[in-house]
Amino acid sequence: MIQRTYNTRFRLSNSILFSFFVFFCSVSHLSSTSSFAAAATTTNNDKTCTDPTCKMSKPTPSQLVKLPTSEVVELLSGIYEHSAWVAETLVKSSPLFTDNMTKDGTITVSQLAQAMKEIVDGATEEAKLKLLQLHPDLGVKAATLKTLTKESQEEQGKAGLQTMTPEQLTKFTALNDQYKTTFGFPFILAVRNASKETILAALSGRVNRPQHSEFQTAIDQVHKIAWMRLLSKLDCSTDSEGYLTVHVLDTANGIPAANMKITLTKLSPTVEDLGTFVTNHDGRLDVGPALEGAGRRARLGSDSLDMEVGVYEWNFYAGDYFASQGTYANGTPFLDTIPIRFGIDNPDDHYHVPLLVSPWSFSTYRGS
Amino acid sequence: MIQRTYNTRFRLSNSILFSFFVFFCSVSHLSSTSSFAAAATTTNNDKTCTDPTCKMSKPTPSQLVKLPTSEVVELLSGIYEHSAWVAETLVKSSPLFTDNMTKDGTITVSQLAQAMKEIVDGATEEAKLKLLQLHPDLGVKAATLKTLTKESQEEQGKAGLQTMTPEQLTKFTALNDQYKTTFGFPFILAVRNASKETILAALSGRVNRPQHSEFQTAIDQVHKIAWMRLLSKLDCSTDSEGYLTVHVLDTANGIPAANMKITLTKLSPTVEDLGTFVTNHDGRLDVGPALEGAGRRARLGSDSLDMEVGVYEWNFYAGDYFASQGTYANGTPFLDTIPIRFGIDNPDDHYHVPLLVSPWSFSTYRGS
Amino acid sequence: MIQRTYNTRFRLSNSILFSFFVFFCSVSHLSSTSSFAAAATTTNNDKTCTDPTCKMSKPTPSQLVKLPTSEVVELLSGIYEHSAWVAETLVKSSPLFTDNMTKDGTITVSQLAQAMKEIVDGATEEAKLKLLQLHPDLGVKAATLKTLTKESQEEQGKAGLQTMTPEQLTKFTALNDQYKTTFGFPFILAVRNASKETILAALSGRVNRPQHSEFQTAIDQVHKIAWMRLLSKLDCSTDSEGYLTVHVLDTANGIPAANMKITLTKLSPTVEDLGTFVTNHDGRLDVGPALEGAGRRARLGSDSLDMEVGVYEWNFYAGDYFASQGTYANGTPFLDTIPIRFGIDNPDDHYHVPLLVSPWSFSTYRGS
Amino acid sequence: MIQRTYNTRFRLSNSILFSFFVFFCSVSHLSSTSSFAAAATTTNNDKTCTDPTCKMSKPTPSQLVKLPTSEVVELLSGIYEHSAWVAETLVKSSPLFTDNMTKDGTITVSQLAQAMKEIVDGATEEAKLKLLQLHPDLGVKAATLKTLTKESQEEQGKAGLQTMTPEQLTKFTALNDQYKTTFGFPFILAVRNASKETILAALSGRVNRPQHSEFQTAIDQVHKIAWMRLLSKLDCSTDSEGYLTVHVLDTANGIPAANMKITLTKLSPTVEDLGTFVTNHDGRLDVGPALEGAGRRARLGSDSLDMEVGVYEWNFYAGDYFASQGTYANGTPFLDTIPIRFGIDNPDDHYHVPLLVSPWSFSTYRGS
Repeated sequence: MIQRTYNTRFRLSNSILFSFFVFFCSVSHLSSTSSFAAAATTTNNDKTCTDPTCKMSKPTPSQLVKLPTSEVVELLSGIYEHSAWVAETLVKSSPLFTDNMTKDGTITVSQLAQAMKEIVDGATEEAKLKLLQLHPDLGVKAATLKTLTKESQEEQGKAGLQTMTPEQLTKFTALNDQYKTTFGFPFILAVRNASKETILAALSGRVNRPQHSEFQTAIDQVHKIAWMRLLSKLDCSTDSEGYLTVHVLDTANGIPAANMKITLTKLSPTVEDLGTFVTNHDGRLDVGPALEGAGRRARLGSDSLDMEVGVYEWNFYAGDYFASQGTYANGTPFLDTIPIRFGIDNPDDHYHVPLLVSPWSFSTYRGS
Repeated sequence: MIQRTYNTRFRLSNSILFSFFVFFCSVSHLSSTSSFAAAATTTNNDKTCTDPTCKMSKPTPSQLVKLPTSEVVELLSGIYEHSAWVAETLVKSSPLFTDNMTKDGTITVSQLAQAMKEIVDGATEEAKLKLLQLHPDLGVKAATLKTLTKESQEEQGKAGLQTMTPEQLTKFTALNDQYKTTFGFPFILAVRNASKETILAALSGRVNRPQHSEFQTAIDQVHKIAWMRLLSKLDCSTDSEGYLTVHVLDTANGIPAANMKITLTKLSPTVEDLGTFVTNHDGRLDVGPALEGAGRRARLGSDSLDMEVGVYEWNFYAGDYFASQGTYANGTPFLDTIPIRFGIDNPDDHYHVPLLVSPWSFSTYRGS
Repeated sequence: MIQRTYNTRFRLSNSILFSFFVFFCSVSHLSSTSSFAAAATTTNNDKTCTDPTCKMSKPTPSQLVKLPTSEVVELLSGIYEHSAWVAETLVKSSPLFTDNMTKDGTITVSQLAQAMKEIVDGATEEAKLKLLQLHPDLGVKAATLKTLTKESQEEQGKAGLQTMTPEQLTKFTALNDQYKTTFGFPFILAVRNASKETILAALSGRVNRPQHSEFQTAIDQVHKIAWMRLLSKLDCSTDSEGYLTVHVLDTANGIPAANMKITLTKLSPTVEDLGTFVTNHDGRLDVGPALEGAGRRARLGSDSLDMEVGVYEWNFYAGDYFASQGTYANGTPFLDTIPIRFGIDNPDDHYHVPLLVSPWSFSTYRGS
Repeated sequence: MIQRTYNTRFRLSNSILFSFFVFFCSVSHLSSTSSFAAAATTTNNDKTCTDPTCKMSKPTPSQLVKLPTSEVVELLSGIYEHSAWVAETLVKSSPLFTDNMTKDGTITVSQLAQAMKEIVDGATEEAKLKLLQLHPDLGVKAATLKTLTKESQEEQGKAGLQTMTPEQLTKFTALNDQYKTTFGFPFILAVRNASKETILAALSGRVNRPQHSEFQTAIDQVHKIAWMRLLSKLDCSTDSEGYLTVHVLDTANGIPAANMKITLTKLSPTVEDLGTFVTNHDGRLDVGPALEGAGRRARLGSDSLDMEVGVYEWNFYAGDYFASQGTYANGTPFLDTIPIRFGIDNPDDHYHVPLLVSPWSFSTYRGS
């Protein structure tokens, strides 16, 4: 049974980790002799990377803005598909790079992404249309994948088009052609591990939307891809100001859930047990935030665990809680340990992830 | 990283499986020469058990009522702690055993549990008090565990009292003594894997409740333990009429969530991937119930997977769904794959476990 | 106290009713001698309207398509602001008017709205832009209101711009000018009774959105206005296929809430007590739908109350329910009678409006 | 139409007010010459009561403990049905009355209720049984009502037994007799305005519960009645430390709902519009608590409106909010103004009543 467990869990974890591989472990484009690489090795936060010519080095946002233009452009040229002009404009005109005051302060990845996004949003309709048109056709045959950017190859690799039956592939191709004809740009779906059903549903739905809605959705998807790629190019482990909090309310008794055991696990980019907590009389944690960005920790002198972009999971011991309350007792409780899996996308945001729970129902939401 | 994954997942799964070991794999008390054992081997649903003297055999509820009184009493004597009289009264007076009409029909484990419960509930206050008093003292030293029934040993073994610090143990012992003095019976907490915090919270809370409330809560806990023990003594894999359904509503758009991918995994008693589903236009499954009890399947001639008592987990691909809708797109979605872990306690019930979901919130509940 | 009650309630009700006045009681543009008016009086559903030259008569969608072109165009010319071409194209090219087969069947208001919407969506970018530009400027002075269409006057009349302080008006005007300069069309907000805070929030938010998003949002708002105006021009009391259902789940006990008293009240276009219901063992109504459209009632021969476009309110007696369960008892329950107010916008849709409730929390959603 | 509105609303309000009349306006038992009455008139918070011999005067909890024993006992003798001994024991033995230190501090109604509750909970089983037996039989004929205490008459008066059909009355009487025979005390249901369905459901359900559960439920109902009666005897308008807060989260966009208009209305004991609020950037109110108890206001020097025991209703302008966001636009929104009706039972508690809302769903709960 243990063996089966191992197998099952391995499969699950593997699929999760693989889907994130591109976003957190991509090889830097920096040459090992770059002016940055040397410095970077000292702040390098990749434990498996120790020698000075390590290819895994990534600059922090604050380091990036100090790199030579050529290196920045090389590093960021692929963020927006085949559109190095976005990176070039960024370096040339964004205060993040041109204003020495700003440049010497702390730069967050959100600021960089926002600056690039504004360059794209501020471009002409023609430029935006061209950007969309430069994206690979999701329907293209595997044989033609080699002409895509490395990033697109990795993203397409997981799109599961390969798993389609001939019938599905025919339907997909027809819809995909209709989409291109209708809107004048290829269908862009920035979803990792999309099932073939999801891809078909997306195409079927979006192909019939108004031009203006679909054009904007396509641009939004491009920004999504850019953000994911940007995170993969930078070391976001420092400077971040975000934090994670929790709150548990017992909706069966109308009180905060006190003394409930909670565990926190990081599922990606790496799998780590981050520890066990117990709620206080107000259903919160006495320690304050469970996770905090390095910037915030440094500023407040707190010693929480590091909050990085990735996927996390709370596990709430609700069954024990209600049994201990005398509220509910049953052989196999309908709700016992409740996992809440959530993504942290912006290392500078506050993530409040509460639980409202009775022995028979629960809900969560991104709070504030 | 895979190694760490393995370690992490192994620990998790192991603790889950161990906690259920007692309930689904306990050795039968039947002698290999019993009139039942021979018959049982033919209906034996334990795949690892092939020879006629197999010790793993368990009767189904319908088989149980046909066994010799002595075997039934031997099998059920430990269901209620040190109180064989419950099993004896059951065989003597319950129509399930005395009424040949009933006896020849299909008997469910719920009927058996209900019958035993009614015998206890119908007993005198003195008998109930005695039953409570016969339960082991959770505070008893490990040294004294050997006097407990086998079942209690297993349940106590996981109560985590051993992990208490001397201070906690002192507090626990004081509260436990106060409890016994106040109510006149030992503190009974029918919770598996209770953290020491949970145990202390339960004691601290329940020690101050009114006599009538606590007496009833103690009786309820005893019934809970009895139900868990009864399930562990019987083969519930046939005759059951329960089924599992799902429904997904998109609360961001006020529509059923169509074409959402869902997986179903059994976490205990064994870990199994039960398959992948895709919601239809109404947010439900075209196949109907995802799981059905053997009795229902036979009656309806359906071929769903078997629904047995245990812990299950839906996994809803909400991130893909919303991205495909153009509702929401983001690098690391706040909600991507949403696990909903739930217990099926009664193999004869309908379990409707729906999901109400937006890109930023979700809820579930036991529906109907 | 009763007097104060009267005042309070009168104010509330008055504001609700007034806000709907335009949508349900607008004077028909039909001349009293129209070929339709005579017929209409027989199907006239306005109780206060008895003589044959009644000005309140409105055609049903099915009657509308049989009216002389000139009357249809006159009736629908104001649906899309100053754009009679939409109505003209509708009559000239929509199968609803040109196909005698279709025309002789039952036409729903949704079909009419959809047909007009498609004409607008299918128009050139220039035509759509012109349509937007023809809309009144929300910032225009009261003095200039007389140049607006009657419908716009009524809608503007409730926009609460008049209540702005000079500072707010200055801010509003500045933002409004910026909006027009940025997008090339006036700010359109199809919200009844918008508070000045809402108007300022809308402007402040939308003025900074991407051109494509905002263009589409503006078009959507125009469609919203058109739908509201269309409903106000037609008699939707017949042919409709929609229905209203309810379901109550007790999330404190994980069971359907049986024997809960529920009342249903219509709040607009008129205020009416629609009756009292009691949930059955499954938490639903034995009568089936609480409301049904006339078309559905005729088809099924059911005698439910009529479902018409408007605002309704369930009132759930949750306090009584939980007290009767022995789940919860308290002097002034946190939740006693729970009003759920909801709008029915499409007389042809199924509205499922359930309640998930514990003594301390509840939720509702549009189900299916 | 306005007339119908008036009638409808009047009926509604009237029924609400009537149901609370007993709890907030009962005539004091104090003689106009009591040592207290004179003093009381100076702190009298009943605006309609101006002369020194006013019969409406009620002591605050802090004033009560200083009254002559005879007056206290007279005032509180009916709190527990026909059991003046509770009030007598309170005055004789509770530190609230015997400890001069305590007595000179601020006493809350919760402290008084708790003190009386503890006297009852601490009494012998015989005394508790007698207390239950002293309660009127809900099934008693209207003809016999005059033997009940005034409080019971009022409460029974609303129990809707009179509305039962002969069949229902027969069923009720049979169940009621069965209940008395089974448990040895009359059926006590502390629910105002219970529908006949609720009463029958309560009886049908509770008659079959275990003795210990039902005994405790009956005692809990008696405490509920006592708390309601106690609140009706005292002036709770001063000293209270409770407060009311709100928070609105937009679950469609994963952000706090900023700039949403909210109104607050008191529905009982009197109907009052308490004002309009607008949420800030965090979805909360800049003013802090919307309501605060007099004690808290005095302590903090804040000027919120008074929080008193009663029923309140938030009204959230969600429709305007989402339309202004461009999130959702529709003729008759499914959700427009969302009323959340809730009871404040304890003037010393914090009531957090948030709203989680999308255009298609919402939930609320008692938070912290």
